[in-house]
Amino acid sequence: MKYCFGVDIGGTTVKLGLFSEAGAIVEKWEIVTRTENEGAAILPDVAEAINGKLEQHGIEKEQVLGIGVGVPAPVTVDGIVNGSANLGWKYKNAKKELEELTGLTAEFGNDANVAALGEMWKGGGVGYRNMIMVTLGTGVGGGIIINGKILTGENGAGGEIGHMCVNLEETDTCGCGGHGCLEQYASATGISRLARKKMEHETRATILTKEDLSAKAVFDAVKEGDEVAIEVATEMGNYLGHAMADMAAVLDPAVFVIGGGVSKAGEVLLSFIEKPFMEKAFFANKNVKFKLATLGNDAGICGAAKLVLED
Amino acid sequence: MKYCFGVDIGGTTVKLGLFSEAGAIVEKWEIVTRTENEGAAILPDVAEAINGKLEQHGIEKEQVLGIGVGVPAPVTVDGIVNGSANLGWKYKNAKKELEELTGLTAEFGNDANVAALGEMWKGGGVGYRNMIMVTLGTGVGGGIIINGKILTGENGAGGEIGHMCVNLEETDTCGCGGHGCLEQYASATGISRLARKKMEHETRATILTKEDLSAKAVFDAVKEGDEVAIEVATEMGNYLGHAMADMAAVLDPAVFVIGGGVSKAGEVLLSFIEKPFMEKAFFANKNVKFKLATLGNDAGICGAAKLVLED
Repeated sequence: MKYCFGVDIGGTTVKLGLFSEAGAIVEKWEIVTRTENEGAAILPDVAEAINGKLEQHGIEKEQVLGIGVGVPAPVTVDGIVNGSANLGWKYKNAKKELEELTGLTAEFGNDANVAALGEMWKGGGVGYRNMIMVTLGTGVGGGIIINGKILTGENGAGGEIGHMCVNLEETDTCGCGGHGCLEQYASATGISRLARKKMEHETRATILTKEDLSAKAVFDAVKEGDEVAIEVATEMGNYLGHAMADMAAVLDPAVFVIGGGVSKAGEVLLSFIEKPFMEKAFFANKNVKFKLATLGNDAGICGAAKLVLED
Repeated sequence: MKYCFGVDIGGTTVKLGLFSEAGAIVEKWEIVTRTENEGAAILPDVAEAINGKLEQHGIEKEQVLGIGVGVPAPVTVDGIVNGSANLGWKYKNAKKELEELTGLTAEFGNDANVAALGEMWKGGGVGYRNMIMVTLGTGVGGGIIINGKILTGENGAGGEIGHMCVNLEETDTCGCGGHGCLEQYASATGISRLARKKMEHETRATILTKEDLSAKAVFDAVKEGDEVAIEVATEMGNYLGHAMADMAAVLDPAVFVIGGGVSKAGEVLLSFIEKPFMEKAFFANKNVKFKLATLGNDAGICGAAKLVLED
């Protein structure tokens, strides 16, 4: 029997999974991410957790195909991270360090890209080989899968779709320093921002309140038929759907998978995205499918495990 | 000694090249594209040309690594063409047909994608593995190379960057039926259109004349310092540069290679593109390089040959 590990390193916790060669989750658990001291303890902590788990289950290192790891930063194909704000890392040869600490093969990827791979393998993208995952969380992340493999890009920054410019007139500044980034409209914080702007001058009756203009509150109100909330969702969906039409013209995917906290709104979210997408999509791309992500927090460890499993 | 063929099928002529295994062009020639009768003669004509060339040079079929072919249509990874307006083809299993006609292995690709591969191999993209080729001709085509390979896409429509929507306010219709496509501003015909619109209400002195508002006339005037022409080039460059910033956010390329008839304007063209690109590019993409294509009409046969040569 052979095994592998999938590891999803976040700014607060590290999620780990022990997988069978066939892809079943044998066990999953978490450890704390120790970001102090430039995150020097993170990879040693991961190595200790993995070594401990092998001992606990009586698994020999020869039985382990490798360790796949997702990290919140651009990562090159060689496993080099050129700094991660969330982890405190500066330049780090993460692959080399973890391989030396464990004596096992390690493959690294960007967390959004790795989660996309997980959704293709076991989630919303099952059955497809050309997929764009759009993650609507605090920010907007993306993961592009071409012919079953992650599109890493030259600097490990492939799929940074949250920083496509969708509004040349924007005066507010994005976290990246740019103006008019998709993230400013389609992330959870972006949706709140659109709702807040609308509520400043709103005179119609609405169940939205200035105390709670979260993305969840907006989509809950949409489900109640609230006109003001529907206008906010329409504005968000227009920016996102049009940007997705541009992504499709470039990449010609078979499927979009929508994940992240905002996607908990469910199918209603897709309706606000598909209409503007279809209005602007190139004819060759109009048969693309729209799916919700299904793996939730497990997408990261699944995709990480898939990094070291053969097709 | 081993050989391969690179074939570039256009709507008027088929360009053919005989290449050595090492990649040198041994001979190149053209035949007429017979598009009548749904283009039924095109592949038989190609097969005859190849068989004749082998006989002429005394090359055995065992010495031929294969035939690479670029066609003006989307092509799947399996060599299926689902119709080509320029060739008169309906559905065609082009790979199977040419292999049966020649007894040789054939690989097919979209002509813009194949030209991009050629430019990476021997032209403006030499030394790079992640490249976006932008072809500014009658239309705007694109070819995306990821890790040295063509991004084909699910329907063979990868890299259709000319149909990214760059202006939601546009009322004129693109050839594809859409509105505000990049092609409407950055192709040779798009540049003429921008110039014509500007000249309608222009009162300043300009060396541009309503009789010749071709892209070449515009860039010739730009080189003379003509204020009106510079404004047309600036408008075109803004649309293109901003769209390229969005492509870069998605794909994280190392280099853009600009080809097609409009690129004959030379380095001055790049200056109009790079400035708006830098204004809108995500920080991780600001080190991307801008190059002019160098192969001209040979890009197609070179890229086609590269389809059947190993890395």
